[in-house]
Amino acid sequence: MEILSLLEPIRKELEVVEERLRQAVEVEQSRLEGVLRYVLDSGGKRIRPALVILASKSHNSDATDRVLFLAAAVELLHTATLVHDDLLDGSLMRRGNPTLNVDLSTGAVILVGDYLFARAADLAAETQSVPVVSIFAQALMTICGGELKQAFAEAAWRRTKEDYFQSIFSKTASLFAASGESGALLSGAPPPTVRALRDYGYNLGMAFQIVDDILDFTGDEQELGKPIGSDLRQGTITLPLLLFLEMHPEVDLLPSIFKEQQGREEKIRTLVDMVRSSPAIRLAREEAQRFTAESKQAIDQLSPSKYRQVMLDLADYLLERRL
Amino acid sequence: MEILSLLEPIRKELEVVEERLRQAVEVEQSRLEGVLRYVLDSGGKRIRPALVILASKSHNSDATDRVLFLAAAVELLHTATLVHDDLLDGSLMRRGNPTLNVDLSTGAVILVGDYLFARAADLAAETQSVPVVSIFAQALMTICGGELKQAFAEAAWRRTKEDYFQSIFSKTASLFAASGESGALLSGAPPPTVRALRDYGYNLGMAFQIVDDILDFTGDEQELGKPIGSDLRQGTITLPLLLFLEMHPEVDLLPSIFKEQQGREEKIRTLVDMVRSSPAIRLAREEAQRFTAESKQAIDQLSPSKYRQVMLDLADYLLERRL
Repeated sequence: MEILSLLEPIRKELEVVEERLRQAVEVEQSRLEGVLRYVLDSGGKRIRPALVILASKSHNSDATDRVLFLAAAVELLHTATLVHDDLLDGSLMRRGNPTLNVDLSTGAVILVGDYLFARAADLAAETQSVPVVSIFAQALMTICGGELKQAFAEAAWRRTKEDYFQSIFSKTASLFAASGESGALLSGAPPPTVRALRDYGYNLGMAFQIVDDILDFTGDEQELGKPIGSDLRQGTITLPLLLFLEMHPEVDLLPSIFKEQQGREEKIRTLVDMVRSSPAIRLAREEAQRFTAESKQAIDQLSPSKYRQVMLDLADYLLERRL
Repeated sequence: MEILSLLEPIRKELEVVEERLRQAVEVEQSRLEGVLRYVLDSGGKRIRPALVILASKSHNSDATDRVLFLAAAVELLHTATLVHDDLLDGSLMRRGNPTLNVDLSTGAVILVGDYLFARAADLAAETQSVPVVSIFAQALMTICGGELKQAFAEAAWRRTKEDYFQSIFSKTASLFAASGESGALLSGAPPPTVRALRDYGYNLGMAFQIVDDILDFTGDEQELGKPIGSDLRQGTITLPLLLFLEMHPEVDLLPSIFKEQQGREEKIRTLVDMVRSSPAIRLAREEAQRFTAESKQAIDQLSPSKYRQVMLDLADYLLERRL
């Protein structure tokens, strides 16, 4: 099943969100607007806005204007973090498209990210809801705080599974959780429903990031639009590698990959191949499956609706996706 | 008169703000906390928080907790923009202290700025006021949008006075205006008072930035903690230079300063000396005086109070300051 047909029940809302996003980056200077549009258009699957809309509609099928502002705000915030992430990682490609780093100066890329943050905050304020703005600000703090802690961590190769789960919460699950929670809040849902949709978002986000991290080992380079092993190459140690190293403590390549330039690329390829062909991939998938099951269970109690059904299907889809 | 004795009537509130700022950067990692504290402590005169508090107290002398959250939020936002600015400019010194760029990687400095933005948004949400959050988000957009436009501008040496006034509004006066407006709003002031305090902030900010730009030509390097002519060296053309060039269109050094590396420093020094000893400095001061007078006039209609008096004195103080 394609994601677009899966999301058909909220297609109209997603179109309004696209329109909001386009308006959000309208500026006087055409070259600047071109850059902002490019960033948004090379954006991804719009899963976070979909989550906001689904969480809201599962309680009240009339998604208000405020919900759509929130959906756009969440996507802009996500985009802003990607712009700065790519800069930090020195990434030249994302989803098969050149990143801003290719054509713009570091300063310009920083400012583009900052502007998108500001625009996102402005759209979040359009929800006219203080609790939603708070949730939004907290998610942003969690995201930035997580990255900052990682940047200041010593001996990154000594990362534990606990560090990993903490970091994918900061990086991904916190915004998924905030999307579910705030979408539900804006629909006027009662506290247990709000909590359920936050839980759904949280678990969905955890599973989503684990699958992402598995695909960085097993995916198709053409489909992914980036080389296999990019995470390790950028100094990020993810679950498949951690599970592999638990089973093979004798493989001691990490410190030298982090500390020596010489022969680095070859060691990375060796390690990535070892992980790919080990049971670590299956074990990591099992973790993703557990989070997926949790996400579905979280919304089990909600009254059945086509929107709840889409959320259940979305969880399965994101687990099975190949890019 | 010293700024501290000038601000004596709100000393207690400013101390609470300092405490809020300290709490805002408490994190688990001590090295990271050290960096965040350093940035805050090498911060400036806390004029923006003072403005929030004064605007609020001039209407209602009980500054609520929400006002102090806002005051801290505004200072954090300002600090975040300074961190990214220094990175963009490649500045190694600010107010006589080394900037973060000296010890940290570009990536870490970007993240420190982002984290401070996020923390600022979170504190702004603590005001529990949607209009205040909106004003705050709009100011952030104005600041980032202004910088972004400048970064994407072609032929920076063709800057006009109109561009200059627009850019100091974005860079400085917008946050001053937002501070006055939102401080007044939180005190429950009626719309004409809110507008008056926004006007006060706007004009104060314009005067403040013009004085800053004059001091970059006339100031004492020791006192300023940075070399004279830093703006031009970083590619920023300010009012004294613009006024000088209006009188001396025959001095055609700018294009080559912007386009050629060879002999650049010498040309900059020559130009700075010409501006310093020309009437352009006096003319620029007259502009600053006009904005100062406007700022005082804006609050003329408000009922007299010691806080209104401090605002009047503050306007004069900022005009006469030497750093």
